[in-house]
Amino acid sequence: MERFINLKGEDIPKQWYNVKADLPFELDPPLDPQTMKPIDPSKLEVLFPKALVMQEATKEREISIPPRVREAYALYRPTPLVRAIGLERALKTPAHIYYKNESVSPTGSHKLNTALAQAYYNLEEGTTKISTETGAGQWGSALAFAGAYFNLDVNVFMVKISFEQKPARKYMVNLFNGKIHPSPSDFTNYGKKVLEVTPNSTGSLGMAISEAIEYALSKEKTHYSLGSVLDHVLLHQTVIGQETKKQMELAGEEPDVLIGCFGGGSNFGGFTLPFMPLKLKKNSLEIVACEPTECPSFTKGEYKYDYGDTAHLTPMLKMYTLGSEFVPPPIYAGGLRYHGASPIISRLVKEGYMKAIAIPQEEAFEAARLFSVTEGIIPAPETSHAIAGVVRYAKACAESGERKVIVFNFSGHGLLDLNSYVK
Amino acid sequence: MERFINLKGEDIPKQWYNVKADLPFELDPPLDPQTMKPIDPSKLEVLFPKALVMQEATKEREISIPPRVREAYALYRPTPLVRAIGLERALKTPAHIYYKNESVSPTGSHKLNTALAQAYYNLEEGTTKISTETGAGQWGSALAFAGAYFNLDVNVFMVKISFEQKPARKYMVNLFNGKIHPSPSDFTNYGKKVLEVTPNSTGSLGMAISEAIEYALSKEKTHYSLGSVLDHVLLHQTVIGQETKKQMELAGEEPDVLIGCFGGGSNFGGFTLPFMPLKLKKNSLEIVACEPTECPSFTKGEYKYDYGDTAHLTPMLKMYTLGSEFVPPPIYAGGLRYHGASPIISRLVKEGYMKAIAIPQEEAFEAARLFSVTEGIIPAPETSHAIAGVVRYAKACAESGERKVIVFNFSGHGLLDLNSYVK
Repeated sequence: MERFINLKGEDIPKQWYNVKADLPFELDPPLDPQTMKPIDPSKLEVLFPKALVMQEATKEREISIPPRVREAYALYRPTPLVRAIGLERALKTPAHIYYKNESVSPTGSHKLNTALAQAYYNLEEGTTKISTETGAGQWGSALAFAGAYFNLDVNVFMVKISFEQKPARKYMVNLFNGKIHPSPSDFTNYGKKVLEVTPNSTGSLGMAISEAIEYALSKEKTHYSLGSVLDHVLLHQTVIGQETKKQMELAGEEPDVLIGCFGGGSNFGGFTLPFMPLKLKKNSLEIVACEPTECPSFTKGEYKYDYGDTAHLTPMLKMYTLGSEFVPPPIYAGGLRYHGASPIISRLVKEGYMKAIAIPQEEAFEAARLFSVTEGIIPAPETSHAIAGVVRYAKACAESGERKVIVFNFSGHGLLDLNSYVK
Repeated sequence: MERFINLKGEDIPKQWYNVKADLPFELDPPLDPQTMKPIDPSKLEVLFPKALVMQEATKEREISIPPRVREAYALYRPTPLVRAIGLERALKTPAHIYYKNESVSPTGSHKLNTALAQAYYNLEEGTTKISTETGAGQWGSALAFAGAYFNLDVNVFMVKISFEQKPARKYMVNLFNGKIHPSPSDFTNYGKKVLEVTPNSTGSLGMAISEAIEYALSKEKTHYSLGSVLDHVLLHQTVIGQETKKQMELAGEEPDVLIGCFGGGSNFGGFTLPFMPLKLKKNSLEIVACEPTECPSFTKGEYKYDYGDTAHLTPMLKMYTLGSEFVPPPIYAGGLRYHGASPIISRLVKEGYMKAIAIPQEEAFEAARLFSVTEGIIPAPETSHAIAGVVRYAKACAESGERKVIVFNFSGHGLLDLNSYVK
């Protein structure tokens, strides 16, 4: 039994996988909030490069990964698939547990898979600056690295409570020459307005998105970049699931349960969507999103059209949502703070192809401690929700005696979040 | 050309390699400071388990790795050998650069290779508590993890200036249920005495060693554990060099230059000693230790018998030393702060088999930034000295046109040291 299932450089996918080619239904389009009609793609081009707007809409099954992006991926890809022998032993479970280790990327999470792609397309179309928001900081530091790699200026608006709790993220963004502002900030009109009304606001992802969009719209040759939720972001992340499929074949096993943590849906979608053709053939395959009890978009939200941000600058998306004004309780320290959810994953949950469970913060932290000592990797607080889900399934197998194959996405490490675990 | 050269689980070494079997000279023995005669091994047994005292003295070429230690190694070993394609490109060098990535270990550095072995032998012989010192924190957190893994209590004395600069190390040690004290502390008589004389002391590794030894000697079933310098520590680290040799064979190349950073000698020795048989056959192989200009044991020190600690509780070792009272200047932020050097490496440098160069902090930090952006891994400040050495050699190749094969040990990542780079 091999612990590390490694691929070769040539196994880095040459295409991103577009699940829309295989879905048995049509997705509801994004709406223009002024007309409530499907949005004209050209309206999105003030925010994103044309190539990404096209990727957002296309139904082509395979989208070629540009050679320079694949070359950048080769810095850290293929990432290992790891058999969680230590965790299995600790749980005395007959289940076989595997994790795809996306934490080996330069910034410690899967986020770089789309950051590099987005930076590349922006560079190609003449952009010189990108702005974005970040929650726990994984996305902001990934975009900063991608900016350093492709020579673009990066401005990051970071949810204020996380900015204060995680100074190391700031250092990392600065090391890659990026600029970072706690949000709400007095750097944008929207931020100023929020601060007038609630000077002690701890921020939310919706607010930070609003600031980053305002910044992009107000500067020359500046685009906005989103780290999750949108279809093109999930598309870029499918390198995760494609590699995992190949690695499971090498391991000689087929997954019974796929598990990921869920914030906006990018690690979850990137990991699970390439398995949708298998799911359509084999209905017993369970695909499980683990969201925080403190930000329960699926388990407590409503499936409807809603805004992606608090200032209502974005198109309306059909998704599970807690309402664009939602702010998680201050006690919640993790990065899974988004009020909504990827429209693709929302629909798949709605139709019953995937399911969602809510994990209380305390259970996630306990799982993280167990995983740290038994597997030797400290997970990001986000990732620990997936691990808690895995622990639930593996314990159920220990009780029933079932030898299920559980595979999860280890989306990021927690080395820059160690203080969260102490508090 | 493959970027990642990975081994299988079965390739984890089954023996540690003891270079003493192959050295063309006899090493000078440790002396008892009271008699100035070779120390009676039984005197060391108040500090260390018998198995380690034996390993310190033996000349057997191969020492079997106990199955439980090898099982623990399997959490993160074999570690990858990586072709530094990004760095080569940035330096426009014809040299081929490879690095052994020891930063993938649970605590982010090579230190765990000996921590697990030491914790295991202590457990076997009935120890329940271990004390130790740590400089930058890599060693302390490694021993804490090993303690958590093998169920031992761990007390770490951390050089005060590093303790204050690197709070994340404290969080990590605590996550693994270890206890950590800034040194000099009022937790030992020696620490109290230092604080009386110099209340603002920023500490030194020598002081922290004195405190950890006093602690071990004053408690029941408590041993002391050292993370570098001693022969048995270097012995455990030879898993690094043994794997690297195999990986270079897979890459189809033979090294012309081996480079490592140097503090006490454990990562450097573990990486280079398994290549000594090659060095004895092929004299053109260069083996280069990179030490900080701010703590220049080889390049400014004297080769003589000296104490290992400031309180003079340890045996005297024949080594390059700056004197046991040496404290690096406060501006120096790295972990390579030890006044002395491994006796084995000292002798090999003295005899001309290895050489040492001094790297100024600024040059190390510049190399770290370059490496972070081109290779996508942020090095520990310690490791960045090795990278600076590599950059010097690779640039020389760019000028001369030589296509040397340069291999270095990436001893640890800097994710818990990000603030060092900002200051």
